[in-house]
Amino acid sequence: MNAYVMLGVFQTSQKLRTSLRLLSRAGLPPVDLQVQLLLRGRSPLSATFSRKLHLGPDGPASSPAAAPRRLPFSRVTVEDLTFFRKTLPGRAITDPDLVQSSNEDWLKSVRGSSEVLLRPQTTQEVSQILSYCHSRNLAVNPQGGNTGLVGGSVPVYDEIILSTSLMNSILSFDKISGILTCQAGCVLENLSLYLEERDYIMPLDLGAKGSCQIGGNVATNAGGLRLLRYGSLHGTVLGLEVVLADGQVLDCLSTLRKDNTGYDLKQLFIGSEGTLGVITAVSILCPRKPKSVNVVFLGCETFDQLLKTFQLCKGMLGEILSAFEFLDSECMRLLNTHLKLANPISDCPFYIVIETSGSDSDHDSQKLHNFLEEAMTSLLVTDGTVATEESKIKTLWSMRERVTEALTHDGFTYKYDISLPVERIYQLVTDMRQHLGKRARSVVGYGHVGDGNLHLNVTSPAKDPALLASIEPFIYEWTAKFQGSISAEHGLGLKKRNYIYYSKSRPAVAVMGKMKTLLDPKGILNPYKTLPDDLK
Amino acid sequence: MNAYVMLGVFQTSQKLRTSLRLLSRAGLPPVDLQVQLLLRGRSPLSATFSRKLHLGPDGPASSPAAAPRRLPFSRVTVEDLTFFRKTLPGRAITDPDLVQSSNEDWLKSVRGSSEVLLRPQTTQEVSQILSYCHSRNLAVNPQGGNTGLVGGSVPVYDEIILSTSLMNSILSFDKISGILTCQAGCVLENLSLYLEERDYIMPLDLGAKGSCQIGGNVATNAGGLRLLRYGSLHGTVLGLEVVLADGQVLDCLSTLRKDNTGYDLKQLFIGSEGTLGVITAVSILCPRKPKSVNVVFLGCETFDQLLKTFQLCKGMLGEILSAFEFLDSECMRLLNTHLKLANPISDCPFYIVIETSGSDSDHDSQKLHNFLEEAMTSLLVTDGTVATEESKIKTLWSMRERVTEALTHDGFTYKYDISLPVERIYQLVTDMRQHLGKRARSVVGYGHVGDGNLHLNVTSPAKDPALLASIEPFIYEWTAKFQGSISAEHGLGLKKRNYIYYSKSRPAVAVMGKMKTLLDPKGILNPYKTLPDDLK
Repeated sequence: MNAYVMLGVFQTSQKLRTSLRLLSRAGLPPVDLQVQLLLRGRSPLSATFSRKLHLGPDGPASSPAAAPRRLPFSRVTVEDLTFFRKTLPGRAITDPDLVQSSNEDWLKSVRGSSEVLLRPQTTQEVSQILSYCHSRNLAVNPQGGNTGLVGGSVPVYDEIILSTSLMNSILSFDKISGILTCQAGCVLENLSLYLEERDYIMPLDLGAKGSCQIGGNVATNAGGLRLLRYGSLHGTVLGLEVVLADGQVLDCLSTLRKDNTGYDLKQLFIGSEGTLGVITAVSILCPRKPKSVNVVFLGCETFDQLLKTFQLCKGMLGEILSAFEFLDSECMRLLNTHLKLANPISDCPFYIVIETSGSDSDHDSQKLHNFLEEAMTSLLVTDGTVATEESKIKTLWSMRERVTEALTHDGFTYKYDISLPVERIYQLVTDMRQHLGKRARSVVGYGHVGDGNLHLNVTSPAKDPALLASIEPFIYEWTAKFQGSISAEHGLGLKKRNYIYYSKSRPAVAVMGKMKTLLDPKGILNPYKTLPDDLK
Repeated sequence: MNAYVMLGVFQTSQKLRTSLRLLSRAGLPPVDLQVQLLLRGRSPLSATFSRKLHLGPDGPASSPAAAPRRLPFSRVTVEDLTFFRKTLPGRAITDPDLVQSSNEDWLKSVRGSSEVLLRPQTTQEVSQILSYCHSRNLAVNPQGGNTGLVGGSVPVYDEIILSTSLMNSILSFDKISGILTCQAGCVLENLSLYLEERDYIMPLDLGAKGSCQIGGNVATNAGGLRLLRYGSLHGTVLGLEVVLADGQVLDCLSTLRKDNTGYDLKQLFIGSEGTLGVITAVSILCPRKPKSVNVVFLGCETFDQLLKTFQLCKGMLGEILSAFEFLDSECMRLLNTHLKLANPISDCPFYIVIETSGSDSDHDSQKLHNFLEEAMTSLLVTDGTVATEESKIKTLWSMRERVTEALTHDGFTYKYDISLPVERIYQLVTDMRQHLGKRARSVVGYGHVGDGNLHLNVTSPAKDPALLASIEPFIYEWTAKFQGSISAEHGLGLKKRNYIYYSKSRPAVAVMGKMKTLLDPKGILNPYKTLPDDLK
């Protein structure tokens, strides 16, 4: 039993800890007492749900993805709970059944042991909570829709969960400029529906839109399906309101397209995964709703032809191109096998999903027709089908969007989200397939060609540490060799924090550490995330 | 004579200062010696060009725009010059005639008294220079094309000028992704020409493109004419290489569209006006060159109709809209009077310049035709003309682009660059006109309607402190009342640094100050700029 697992054994229930804290205040050191209780074989006073130490997603405790030792934050006391209950009447949750779902990520790959879930409704309440936690040295895990893929949105140990779910008001929408201002807890799909009624759309769209919240989207710099057309959140987010670790409210909630009055501080919080501040409100520039949408599903013989099709497409579809996605024949096999989805065209090694969005359906159709004719006659694509009706559009999109779901049926999945120069992205899949040989059940590649973003997934019948050891660090080294990013859009969270050096220089990571210390000197915000352990 | 002017009298030549430094090293305090020399009426040992204290652009020394007292940086010594000459053979310039043009901004509104101009060619040289200056506590003024409008690009006192002009190599261009990587000193127009040959364009375009450099564009977060279509540099800049104040090279020169591995540090330097680091290389995402460009010049009776035309235009031109600019009848009067430019349509209170850029000229023409028909029949616009040929396009664009030039012929010009909710932008011009009455010669409004960005200019026969006192802080208070920005795209530089609180909260400015201290603890980089004096 190594030190980490030992620590895990010390995880005790909140009631026990509260008692220990009270005893501690009476002069008894709580950790020692816990050890004594443990050694005497006494069971915890309460065991309403079992707690396990977080061991990282896939590996043994020694894996770079594993959780580090618990940092010396305070533990929640009865007095703390009294404060939280007074500040958030009826919204300071301690019922283990209610807290449990917030302790675990949706992939069920990581799990914390928090016993307090706070649900503020206002920025002022967030400020009061953080100010209190800062003074008490209590760690806090900010949480949006909890749809992250890198273990960034759940506690690692007993961090207090600060959920933005009840901060779900739209604050303003300017129909002339298309600028939306809302609280951080608004669910992305709700914002999309609100905007569509007003002839606008959100500049981002994700598979998780039914659950993910705009604050979490911004905190993780979510990419998604519309990035090719509307750009990243660094461009579309115009303002943020952020509560800093000490409770101070940083009001950068500009609703202007242009503002060059000093450093653009809000940018720092975009993609900082809740480690620098809690985003409480967002203003974002929204595009007009397109009047015409078409989707094409095409097949190619080689990845080189796929890239040439991308080039042709950029030239001929130009300003109406809104997505260029791909999947390989292995993805198609999984869609067929596990979800019974039929290939809409003939079998090919590679498939492309192209979406156009424009303001004139006749023009868009004509551009699409010209492009398809050129792509077919020049033999870049071998087969294809076009959809203009909403139901068929959804069917074609599902071939791309449901790959993740098909993978979950194929076995235990090792997931990677890599950015590379676009001409390299499939070479990594080929190399990985060759490298792993028969050790993997499936090695599949799909993703956002237009953004140079590959989702590489490897499945095996069950969790397989030996297979993992073959994948990592091979995949990270390969990515670094071609100046890629080991996390294109998912972030680092808990799972990938220690792999940061494959994509960021040591001086850059050192500056990140200084920023963290500057804005959160006690390190209470989302500890164990984003920053590598060797900074601490 | 106040303290600032007193200080000005102390400005002495480099040779004298070098002598003083040498004397100082022999034990004599240089400042006292200067005072003695002055009191004895001795002239400087060298006076090859006269030096004046910077008093701020328009006002007396007590104006918030005036330069603060010189900070206690070291002065350049013979030993320093020896180091610079050894590090940059033939590129450490001290000839006063050659240094002079770098001391003065192009508006000739501010002037420093630097005696050293350094022209590095490589990042390594920039690093060596800053490392040295940091150890010696020598202040440094990073300079690109020196086309800024807020006194940010020239020294205030004797800061060493670090010019990026010789760092003008294109490092790479990826034809598939459209990602360009180049040194900071590349002139914007040269990059545009390079890209156009390769069927791409730069995502930004400015009037100053013939002189401004991409590093300076990024350092000031330049906006310009294409922002409406391609977004801000926060979205299009993918990577930066920056040399920090102590000489450390921060390599964030990613060439990836997506990279979520930790904090996006490069964002901090975009718009920081050279106060946090010296940008040495840039990678930027470039759009495809449009196959078809049209320009329309329209007239409206009211600003409300102009805004409704903007709404109609966004809906009907959609994805091909690339600029929506305006000027008022006062601008037209100045264009007629001073530049003899004829109004291409009948006289109207407001004029609009609309540009479309698309991939199919037939489609674009048809969209434009439909839009114009609707705008005319619904009586939103009263007259208009369309250009598709390059020469006529240039003629129509000149009506918007040459307003600045016409203003210079109208008298002394007080220039403002304001962001406001788009429905407010002209109300400020009307209110200002009423507020100033006959004290102003002309009060004109023009700018980027699509971005909510107004350029308000006031002219008078000569510099007029009483008029200035009527304009400021009136204009800033008005802007703040409607949550606008007192600098939409020009930055703060020297001139506007103390007005920052009209657009930024005190906690935000305090965080800016901490960032500055973190990255440049001695404050040697572009002192007296961007940050307000009360932070020091």
